[in-house]
Amino acid sequence: MASEFDLIARHFTRTAPGDILGVGDDCALFPVPPGMQVAVSKDLLIAGRHFYPDADPVSVGHKSLAVNLSDLAAMGAQPLGCLLGLALPSMDEAWLAAYARGFHALAQASGCPLIGGDTTRSLHDLTLSVTVFGAVPAHAALRRDAACPGDDIWISGELGAADIAYRLLDGQLPADAARLARTRRALEWPQPRLALGQGLRGLAHAAIDISDGLAQDLGHILAASGVGAELRYADLPRAAGLEGLDEATLQRALLGGGDVYELCFTAPAQRRDAVMQAAHASQTPVTRIGRIVAADGLCVLDAQGQALPHIPGGFDHFGGVA
Amino acid sequence: MASEFDLIARHFTRTAPGDILGVGDDCALFPVPPGMQVAVSKDLLIAGRHFYPDADPVSVGHKSLAVNLSDLAAMGAQPLGCLLGLALPSMDEAWLAAYARGFHALAQASGCPLIGGDTTRSLHDLTLSVTVFGAVPAHAALRRDAACPGDDIWISGELGAADIAYRLLDGQLPADAARLARTRRALEWPQPRLALGQGLRGLAHAAIDISDGLAQDLGHILAASGVGAELRYADLPRAAGLEGLDEATLQRALLGGGDVYELCFTAPAQRRDAVMQAAHASQTPVTRIGRIVAADGLCVLDAQGQALPHIPGGFDHFGGVA
Repeated sequence: MASEFDLIARHFTRTAPGDILGVGDDCALFPVPPGMQVAVSKDLLIAGRHFYPDADPVSVGHKSLAVNLSDLAAMGAQPLGCLLGLALPSMDEAWLAAYARGFHALAQASGCPLIGGDTTRSLHDLTLSVTVFGAVPAHAALRRDAACPGDDIWISGELGAADIAYRLLDGQLPADAARLARTRRALEWPQPRLALGQGLRGLAHAAIDISDGLAQDLGHILAASGVGAELRYADLPRAAGLEGLDEATLQRALLGGGDVYELCFTAPAQRRDAVMQAAHASQTPVTRIGRIVAADGLCVLDAQGQALPHIPGGFDHFGGVA
Repeated sequence: MASEFDLIARHFTRTAPGDILGVGDDCALFPVPPGMQVAVSKDLLIAGRHFYPDADPVSVGHKSLAVNLSDLAAMGAQPLGCLLGLALPSMDEAWLAAYARGFHALAQASGCPLIGGDTTRSLHDLTLSVTVFGAVPAHAALRRDAACPGDDIWISGELGAADIAYRLLDGQLPADAARLARTRRALEWPQPRLALGQGLRGLAHAAIDISDGLAQDLGHILAASGVGAELRYADLPRAAGLEGLDEATLQRALLGGGDVYELCFTAPAQRRDAVMQAAHASQTPVTRIGRIVAADGLCVLDAQGQALPHIPGGFDHFGGVA
């Protein structure tokens, strides 16, 4: 068994950058730039709950790191490194090699080297546990509790595709190969918005990444900040591949769909030009979708300025209603 | 399901110290003292592999953090905080409350606040994933690759009890309630040697914590440092409760027994007084058990100065031969 796990270790061990002590000691060691705080986040992913056991392992490797990097992006942090815990019921070296390839490709592209972790045999479940570390200047982190009445509400990228792809794969929507082909990349290859997050330091008031759905995750900002919000439904950026869906399905995908990993953030209305510059500099599309108000609660206005009677709740795709 | 998991979150959420942003944002944030590097370690523990499913959950909470803190101790790092990932097949609130009690008691005693994590429902396994962060002055970390010929080899505490308790509980040794009563505390309540590790900064050359057995873990120091070692078998500090065991069982417990979480370290012979002072200051017993030599390999000498013909290999109690 030792040799099997040594084999795994080799798939995951890369030479750490010169100033980092990586795999092979009791701890990994890394420096933190002066004046910076450390931002940390951790997610567990279990085959059959958080991803399909037969999903492309390269995409699983990518996504298991991406969802953690997205948390760093939402704080405005730059990645420093990551740890990977693998609990495996059995050896499937081809799966592991492909998983490692997806993981390392994103780690390298994001400047987030894998510097340590743990591998063990499990009894039943295949569990992935990723921890990421980043650096953010003290007092410049993008928190959830800093939204102010009058702030614009912005979102990066587009909404809805991951939700539709999930429902097609899960059989909740009738099979539609063409639609699936246009939407599944959003589900399987989310792109953490690291450059945008760092560009919003000192500019955005509050930020969060959308994992459980826009309405629910924006709700976390509202609750933490003690404010409310008005969203303009017609302004929500729709992904390609959503054409021809019934209105209820579309609303649920845009407002309630999870697995999005775009940044929702608030910024003062007088900083619109600066936000657009940060978006341009980070090559990330952003859309203004509403505003923060003093009164509690979330209101979604239709094109006629009428409040939607029902706002779809958040949905954790693989875990049930969030 | 959301409310069940909210309930769990309440068992684990404590107010973070003033300079830390804890649970409730995309990331936790903590400051790092100037001139310090960050040390990180992560372990996965699975019920039925790394601990008995019917073990006292308070001790499981303690041990799941202790084994990670032991890695910080072995680097000479002071704890800054930790993350906990819980993957649970079902809810057992009494178990969770007891687990949280054991975890938090050690976290508080060690100055290692729980600042974030993730909780999810698993399909089958109960998996605990703990990540710890510490701080160590740049260039003062106790690494594995710094042992020098002529160094003394030291060990903290005592050896053998955890191995015997495990073998009694596992039925590999005949039932012996009196012996189990004297040894099982070492197995279930290991004490990370944090104060000693920090006291050895600038004094010890190399260090490791004993998780897989003295012979195997010292072997990691030897391999990383490109040196060999002579151990004096008669000088190995024996825990209470080992009296009357046959010699093969005793040797296996002392040299091969895992789950020890004592520090094995090397230091120059001319610094013996300073090592004893560091041990006294940290209220940690230490014993000199051998020396580092230039020639490769590990040699264990008996009381007559003869090399033992066979050195018991490392053994990962719950995972098989390490």
